[in-house]
Amino acid sequence: MPQTIPTDSVGLVKPQVHHFDEPLLLRSGAVLSSYDLVVETYGELNAARNNAVLICHALSGDHHAAGYHSLDDKKAGWWDSCIGPGKAIDTNLFYVVCLNNLGGCAGSTGPISINPETGKIYGPDFPIVTVRDWVNSQKRLMDRLGIEEWAAVVGGSLGGMQVLRWSISYPQCMRNAVVIAAAPKLSAQNIAFNEVARHSITRDPNFHKGHYLEHGTYPKQGLMLARMVGHITYLSDSAMSAKFGKSISDFESEGTNFGRDLRTGKLSFGFNADFEVESYLHYQGERFSENFDANTYLLMTKALDYFDPSVDYDGDLAKAFENSDCRFLIMSFSTDWRFPPERSREIVTKLLKAKRDVSYLEIAADQGHDAFLMPIPRYVNALSAYLQKVYEGLA
Amino acid sequence: MPQTIPTDSVGLVKPQVHHFDEPLLLRSGAVLSSYDLVVETYGELNAARNNAVLICHALSGDHHAAGYHSLDDKKAGWWDSCIGPGKAIDTNLFYVVCLNNLGGCAGSTGPISINPETGKIYGPDFPIVTVRDWVNSQKRLMDRLGIEEWAAVVGGSLGGMQVLRWSISYPQCMRNAVVIAAAPKLSAQNIAFNEVARHSITRDPNFHKGHYLEHGTYPKQGLMLARMVGHITYLSDSAMSAKFGKSISDFESEGTNFGRDLRTGKLSFGFNADFEVESYLHYQGERFSENFDANTYLLMTKALDYFDPSVDYDGDLAKAFENSDCRFLIMSFSTDWRFPPERSREIVTKLLKAKRDVSYLEIAADQGHDAFLMPIPRYVNALSAYLQKVYEGLA
Repeated sequence: MPQTIPTDSVGLVKPQVHHFDEPLLLRSGAVLSSYDLVVETYGELNAARNNAVLICHALSGDHHAAGYHSLDDKKAGWWDSCIGPGKAIDTNLFYVVCLNNLGGCAGSTGPISINPETGKIYGPDFPIVTVRDWVNSQKRLMDRLGIEEWAAVVGGSLGGMQVLRWSISYPQCMRNAVVIAAAPKLSAQNIAFNEVARHSITRDPNFHKGHYLEHGTYPKQGLMLARMVGHITYLSDSAMSAKFGKSISDFESEGTNFGRDLRTGKLSFGFNADFEVESYLHYQGERFSENFDANTYLLMTKALDYFDPSVDYDGDLAKAFENSDCRFLIMSFSTDWRFPPERSREIVTKLLKAKRDVSYLEIAADQGHDAFLMPIPRYVNALSAYLQKVYEGLA
Repeated sequence: MPQTIPTDSVGLVKPQVHHFDEPLLLRSGAVLSSYDLVVETYGELNAARNNAVLICHALSGDHHAAGYHSLDDKKAGWWDSCIGPGKAIDTNLFYVVCLNNLGGCAGSTGPISINPETGKIYGPDFPIVTVRDWVNSQKRLMDRLGIEEWAAVVGGSLGGMQVLRWSISYPQCMRNAVVIAAAPKLSAQNIAFNEVARHSITRDPNFHKGHYLEHGTYPKQGLMLARMVGHITYLSDSAMSAKFGKSISDFESEGTNFGRDLRTGKLSFGFNADFEVESYLHYQGERFSENFDANTYLLMTKALDYFDPSVDYDGDLAKAFENSDCRFLIMSFSTDWRFPPERSREIVTKLLKAKRDVSYLEIAADQGHDAFLMPIPRYVNALSAYLQKVYEGLA
């Protein structure tokens, strides 16, 4: 809870709900007849209406990217380290827009919303949404806000995939694409981890084929386990070791130091948590499972699995980029093993093949995939410098 | 099912059960008053009784390392690629011994055995066993077989950890230590994955605090999920991609090839398996969960977590090796991310610091951690050449 709002914060923010009545045809062929998008904006749209930056969120993100909803908030928005006055995504310069994606559980239409056609909660009947569908809905939001061209579309991880899709679907609507810690599509291992998460949720006896809310239950254990697995993949081995792997030799020898490893004292010789990393994972899983909808989690993992912008171009990603008309900044992190630097370099290679204007930066960072959310100086400074140039080019 | 036994096979083998009545004090302080070890041997013990090789198994292994139990067997023992007449671990030269470790579920005393003190199945009351306990029980088997010195103790993964423990606990009892794809102790990430597996099993409603057999149930879903996660960590990203990642461009363009990715045809836009890797994981998990005891799986993961031979030496692994008196061969595989080459090099560094005689070989192999079970020519040839020298040195 901030006693006072920090001066480099966007301050107190209030989400806006935009209702859309024009039916949205999804990639699956299903149609959303109407829907809501919940949106936050920071900074001011300039008179030329050309300083808008769209932020696309990742798997568990939402529209609340920066600032506080109330003075009682324990934490700021999920990307507060980068969004604010004077920060890398400088709200003194830019009008920053962030929304909760369709299928989400933070206010936009999704599985916990009422299906207007049945009057009941969607639950598992909410249609599969893809990155392309999200981008189409974001385009409608763009029109609603009276923006003709984004100064930049920015996102990390699954958010970065939305940026790539923007550059292919709406090349005339953006000047810059900032794609952080993403991949051109998922690897078999990525899909395998997602399937473990889905399996964990759907086999929870409280899942009830997705109708858990109607049963007054919740697949808490399944969601917790899914998050525990996910969380491991967000961190690097070295980051986990740095956080929890204090080795015996770090302790003073005190008679027998047997079992003084990874910080929890003597081994239990049972199945309680012996190592701090176990308690940490439980905590992360537990906290997440109390605040996230299981059906939304399933949808998000499928959006990841299905992402492949080369699909309409005979599998040739370079061809997909041929109509793109923006500058690209691609960034990756050295210890990210979920979407490692090789995957970003694949994107760069295809952009170069398509003769696009691309800058690439690989940041040495120990934090694994989660690095994209962290205030790592070299990363934040690079993003800041790039966007400063973007701003200077708006005139 | 082999129509005829291959000529380089050890052929039909029959496990032997050895009963031990002398109580075994475990590291936890618990005591096993008596126990059985189920053992297979291949080849002949020579007159000098110095050509015996002990094979230590990994997490899901057992005593059945080579050959067939019957002509109806669909598969040979788990390390048949390396054990047999003329093979790397040559049964024309060596007397090869492999046992199921205590706590296992393949015939040695473990959770599915009857506790002689209660007349009931041990289940979750079977005590936690550690690598050190296994080595102590293996030493008793050695005495029973009338062997004073192993020509070599050999193992991969958790098996390699037993080899390291042998070299510290019983330095006079072995001439060579062959440690493959192992680590000096687990990383925080390793422990985290193990905890996910345990969480998955113990939160299965059919687990009943480990008393599932008394309840006539089985935590099949939990064990399946644990194995799915484990399986991902045994394979490299590249091995999975090679196996399942046929990309769209590998297919002929046929009108729309939308969704022809990773081989299962059109996307379902639902939660069925869209990608072959999903079905593969299900199959692996399902098959494993039908053939392995959940309490044993829990015990094995704890043995991994607790392994740290430096623990009695103020965390100084080099000091632990100071009394070791054998030659070491350490091997690792380039794409193993469970116990990557760095972890093997840690062992090598400590052995060198302790002035031990050590050879190290890092094998370029695409198969990840599972490579240690595969007939990779460079790996098998290196093992073969080393053991040939071992044999020549026995005279």
